[in-house]
Amino acid sequence: MTLRKTLSVATLLGALPGIALAQEAAAPVDNAFIFNTLLFLIGGFLVFWMAAGFAMLEAGLVRSKNVAMQLTKNIALFSIAAIMYWLVGYNLMYPGDGWSIAGVLGAFSTADIGGDPAIEAGYATGSDFFFQLMFCATTASIVSGTLAERIKLWPFLIFTAVLTGIIYPIEASWQWGGGFIAEMGFSDFAGSTLVHAAGGFAALAGALVLGPRLGKYKDGRVVPMPGSNLALATLGTFILWLGWFGFNGGSQLALGTEADANAVAVIFANTNMAAAAGAVAAMILTQVLYKKVDLTMVLNGALAGLVSITAGPLDPTLFGALWIGAVGGVIVVFVVPMLDKLKIDDVVGAIPVHLIAGLWGTFAVPFYTEGTSFVTQIIGFVIVGGFVFVVSLVLWLILKATMGIRVSEEEEINGLDMAELGMEAYPEFSKG
Amino acid sequence: MTLRKTLSVATLLGALPGIALAQEAAAPVDNAFIFNTLLFLIGGFLVFWMAAGFAMLEAGLVRSKNVAMQLTKNIALFSIAAIMYWLVGYNLMYPGDGWSIAGVLGAFSTADIGGDPAIEAGYATGSDFFFQLMFCATTASIVSGTLAERIKLWPFLIFTAVLTGIIYPIEASWQWGGGFIAEMGFSDFAGSTLVHAAGGFAALAGALVLGPRLGKYKDGRVVPMPGSNLALATLGTFILWLGWFGFNGGSQLALGTEADANAVAVIFANTNMAAAAGAVAAMILTQVLYKKVDLTMVLNGALAGLVSITAGPLDPTLFGALWIGAVGGVIVVFVVPMLDKLKIDDVVGAIPVHLIAGLWGTFAVPFYTEGTSFVTQIIGFVIVGGFVFVVSLVLWLILKATMGIRVSEEEEINGLDMAELGMEAYPEFSKG
Amino acid sequence: MTLRKTLSVATLLGALPGIALAQEAAAPVDNAFIFNTLLFLIGGFLVFWMAAGFAMLEAGLVRSKNVAMQLTKNIALFSIAAIMYWLVGYNLMYPGDGWSIAGVLGAFSTADIGGDPAIEAGYATGSDFFFQLMFCATTASIVSGTLAERIKLWPFLIFTAVLTGIIYPIEASWQWGGGFIAEMGFSDFAGSTLVHAAGGFAALAGALVLGPRLGKYKDGRVVPMPGSNLALATLGTFILWLGWFGFNGGSQLALGTEADANAVAVIFANTNMAAAAGAVAAMILTQVLYKKVDLTMVLNGALAGLVSITAGPLDPTLFGALWIGAVGGVIVVFVVPMLDKLKIDDVVGAIPVHLIAGLWGTFAVPFYTEGTSFVTQIIGFVIVGGFVFVVSLVLWLILKATMGIRVSEEEEINGLDMAELGMEAYPEFSKG
Repeated sequence: MTLRKTLSVATLLGALPGIALAQEAAAPVDNAFIFNTLLFLIGGFLVFWMAAGFAMLEAGLVRSKNVAMQLTKNIALFSIAAIMYWLVGYNLMYPGDGWSIAGVLGAFSTADIGGDPAIEAGYATGSDFFFQLMFCATTASIVSGTLAERIKLWPFLIFTAVLTGIIYPIEASWQWGGGFIAEMGFSDFAGSTLVHAAGGFAALAGALVLGPRLGKYKDGRVVPMPGSNLALATLGTFILWLGWFGFNGGSQLALGTEADANAVAVIFANTNMAAAAGAVAAMILTQVLYKKVDLTMVLNGALAGLVSITAGPLDPTLFGALWIGAVGGVIVVFVVPMLDKLKIDDVVGAIPVHLIAGLWGTFAVPFYTEGTSFVTQIIGFVIVGGFVFVVSLVLWLILKATMGIRVSEEEEINGLDMAELGMEAYPEFSKG
Repeated sequence: MTLRKTLSVATLLGALPGIALAQEAAAPVDNAFIFNTLLFLIGGFLVFWMAAGFAMLEAGLVRSKNVAMQLTKNIALFSIAAIMYWLVGYNLMYPGDGWSIAGVLGAFSTADIGGDPAIEAGYATGSDFFFQLMFCATTASIVSGTLAERIKLWPFLIFTAVLTGIIYPIEASWQWGGGFIAEMGFSDFAGSTLVHAAGGFAALAGALVLGPRLGKYKDGRVVPMPGSNLALATLGTFILWLGWFGFNGGSQLALGTEADANAVAVIFANTNMAAAAGAVAAMILTQVLYKKVDLTMVLNGALAGLVSITAGPLDPTLFGALWIGAVGGVIVVFVVPMLDKLKIDDVVGAIPVHLIAGLWGTFAVPFYTEGTSFVTQIIGFVIVGGFVFVVSLVLWLILKATMGIRVSEEEEINGLDMAELGMEAYPEFSKG
Repeated sequence: MTLRKTLSVATLLGALPGIALAQEAAAPVDNAFIFNTLLFLIGGFLVFWMAAGFAMLEAGLVRSKNVAMQLTKNIALFSIAAIMYWLVGYNLMYPGDGWSIAGVLGAFSTADIGGDPAIEAGYATGSDFFFQLMFCATTASIVSGTLAERIKLWPFLIFTAVLTGIIYPIEASWQWGGGFIAEMGFSDFAGSTLVHAAGGFAALAGALVLGPRLGKYKDGRVVPMPGSNLALATLGTFILWLGWFGFNGGSQLALGTEADANAVAVIFANTNMAAAAGAVAAMILTQVLYKKVDLTMVLNGALAGLVSITAGPLDPTLFGALWIGAVGGVIVVFVVPMLDKLKIDDVVGAIPVHLIAGLWGTFAVPFYTEGTSFVTQIIGFVIVGGFVFVVSLVLWLILKATMGIRVSEEEEINGLDMAELGMEAYPEFSKG
């Protein structure tokens, strides 16, 4: 009944070079190509949604005077990642046969996704680009939370451009592009190390260079600076949890066989279990330790559970996912105060959640995945983490020395929203 | 171009016992297996998203002093449901040939989802577990709203563990596990009775044992206690509406034939129509009755429309979905004040929306579905509802007698957030 | 293991007229039918989600005294659209062979989606109805933002009913129903003109008849009236961005071949790139022009990028999507103050984003799509826009003359929430 169909397929698709519609109708359709592409697209839009999750989580965990800035950083970093990953990141990460230095440095060229579908690849190139881009953006999202409430907008965005265009693609190519740590036997199914710990290391380097917020550590005490909107923070956590089904499930990278479909299903169930276990572990532990449940710890516990299962979401049993995720939740409860003791000011807890739980998840892979080794996992983690940390540190130091990365004391006290944007997130709600 | 693919499929999937990749490439692929699994996974993540919807709806409808607690309850109940459904619920609900008491009590064992895909089942076991778990969690989500603003955290969570591990799986097994009410000819496509009314009965039992909030019913008057954030409540409603496409559409349980795809499509369209009709009916009715539209009634009207169509979303015409949903919306407008007259304090209106509209939806099935009878529908509803209500009542009474289920008067007045969590959802916004 | 399956497919589906289950199991399955239907359903629920995006965006950009009303309008307009599109819109838009006036006016009858799946159509009718309905509702969502904070509820809803039942279906039939502008060679893949500019023209007509908010333009100055909740506005933008993958990707209307899957993938990637480019362009431009980044401009920049690519998301390269989207972002930054100079009060910036960027996107199609012409694009835009504008203007004038469309001055000052609904969105947060 809808002529819209006839029009768009016949007229518009006809314009796509190399596709002869009549011929293709006759040839048998490769359903696996469609299933694989569909998995990338569904996985990709779910991981895109994680960008909104980070934005809400971080907006909820900063004070109201910095909310508009945190929102701006989140939408801007995603947009910059989208452009940089196209401009240089994608081909740097997946050089195929075109490495600049084999196994270490990919190719410098711009991604091209159109044209004839390459059936032999088994999926549409555009869907792969779309999916992989979201992982690159996730890495950058992790950084913005740690450095909130004191970093200037533009230096942060310049760092983001280098992280998403260069740093992430290079380290990710070492594993997912078939580089040297993949050759070593390192295993990181969906990125506990390559995405989460990498983002955590970039954040840690930034936190060290930037220093803590004014008044955070005073006379040996840690001054609590509670988030302004825990409803938003909870919403952000639920969004991230939802998006993680795409993050881990889509990383199966194929849906065209019964075995692949079965694997994606196992991954979904395990991912959910690890998140639930992380939340419950953090809840019970904060009740035991502090006699009160701490909602922000429960939220971060769920996220740590998710990060923990990300390196190997396919092979564990549901019980395996439960205990691996639960350890992630426990990690958060212990590491958050440890960082404060070290006077490393991580506004949203991204370092415990992404770096430390990422280390745990990477280490835990050999418990369930045959052919992997604890030693290789640690070596791979150290290589990727060391690279990201050192390059990030140098970059933060250069940015600090040249344009400065921190707002003035007065601007920090008044809030970044008025200082840097000239607008408030909640202009009508008077502050208590 | 992405070697990530080769690595993960070859190395990681190869580790999955029983899957020989080479062999499988040769055998013809059962596309129906993939489609069915995909339906469960998409349906499952949409129903997962409903957990966020309940969290936002309830956080928006309680007063700001109880928001952090409501958020905590929602993320905790989902996490507990995920663990309990694995630990005992799934096999209790779907015993197959392993009933403890045939048709009445399933098997006590832990769910195992990994291993070789059982092609003959027609879908991946993991995807079925993932999907069914979400229904279990939904049942628990319904309870938290009714009992908000006065119940203690831990007794609520213990009730949740029993509800999701034992009560829901048993009653659901009677129908969806092939138990005795299914044998009777009862029909409940996606759970107007098994999920929604069951959650409503558990909530009703709790509300009776717990009593109303302090000051709610005073000198024969009903004191309004408006929700603190109607934007969140509206967001929650939209989230639930979206998730319901997975709830009802996924309950077709198959997508591998043209007939199944057509059925899922009809269900999506009918589900949407019922929600729209419920919203419009509540809107017009509040305008007529009170001369002003009531946004919270419109939101609950949409939800009641959704609950109403859930027992039979496939067979009605669009006009059928419209009037069935509209009656749901009307029910809400009339039942909310009736409950207040009975001094049953249901903070978010979950009893009208889920229990009463669930009754209506269950009753309405024979209008469009051949082979069903009004009498059987009522009998099935009474059996399930009676069981859930009585067991819940006993459990609430035991919890009350042992650990107590209600916070102190002072804690209730100060808000559960400070009393039980020691934190506020919106610490900076001064209260009017 | 789940008998739920056996029950629902055998008992319930068996009740669907014309489907003989046994027979169908024997016949070879048309996988393309399932893929196409699935694309409509996934695309449809993503576009449904845009209704929530508009609700959050608009609730965030109005002042807190009008938030509950804005939420009410958004959920009500979607519900009314769902009913009107069934009652008359769908068959008016897709008359097939049943035009009342060939190519100009469709058929007046009610949509019927059930029954036997029409295999030869290539997709389930219900999925097409579901998908197309969401586009109709989107058109109405655009209007509510522009007219916020001063329009009465019921005249707005009457306008919505006519827009979604009559105006949109007629103009959309001219292109997507195979009407006269399609015959001319006009090209609008997913609706830059048919949906976005149409919504913008309806909004513009309303803004002219309604006049600006009290105090908006005073002594030659434009008085800023900042939105009450930029976190909600940002959430709304992310929701819309997510939904747009369904909007544009689903408009491929087919997923059953490798070429179609490839096309959907290209569309996803291009859509994302255009949004990112629009956001970055608006960010850089506001920094350059005003020395401060403007978050609301960044949000609207992303949306304008999305509108810009909507007329032709398939054919451009990623670089094409980048510059087309970036021009959209630039448009927003320049057109928002221009409208204020003309004293056209568009509360959320819907006219720049949807009408002007819609014009740009429509015009830009021939840069990448063979067989289209700039002249024809402009002619088509003028025909559709002229029709929608004139009919809307007449309708707004009739509504103004009969029931009045604007609240009283006192009601506007006190806020629509108390005046028209008798409730507040944030009753506990005192106003600054």
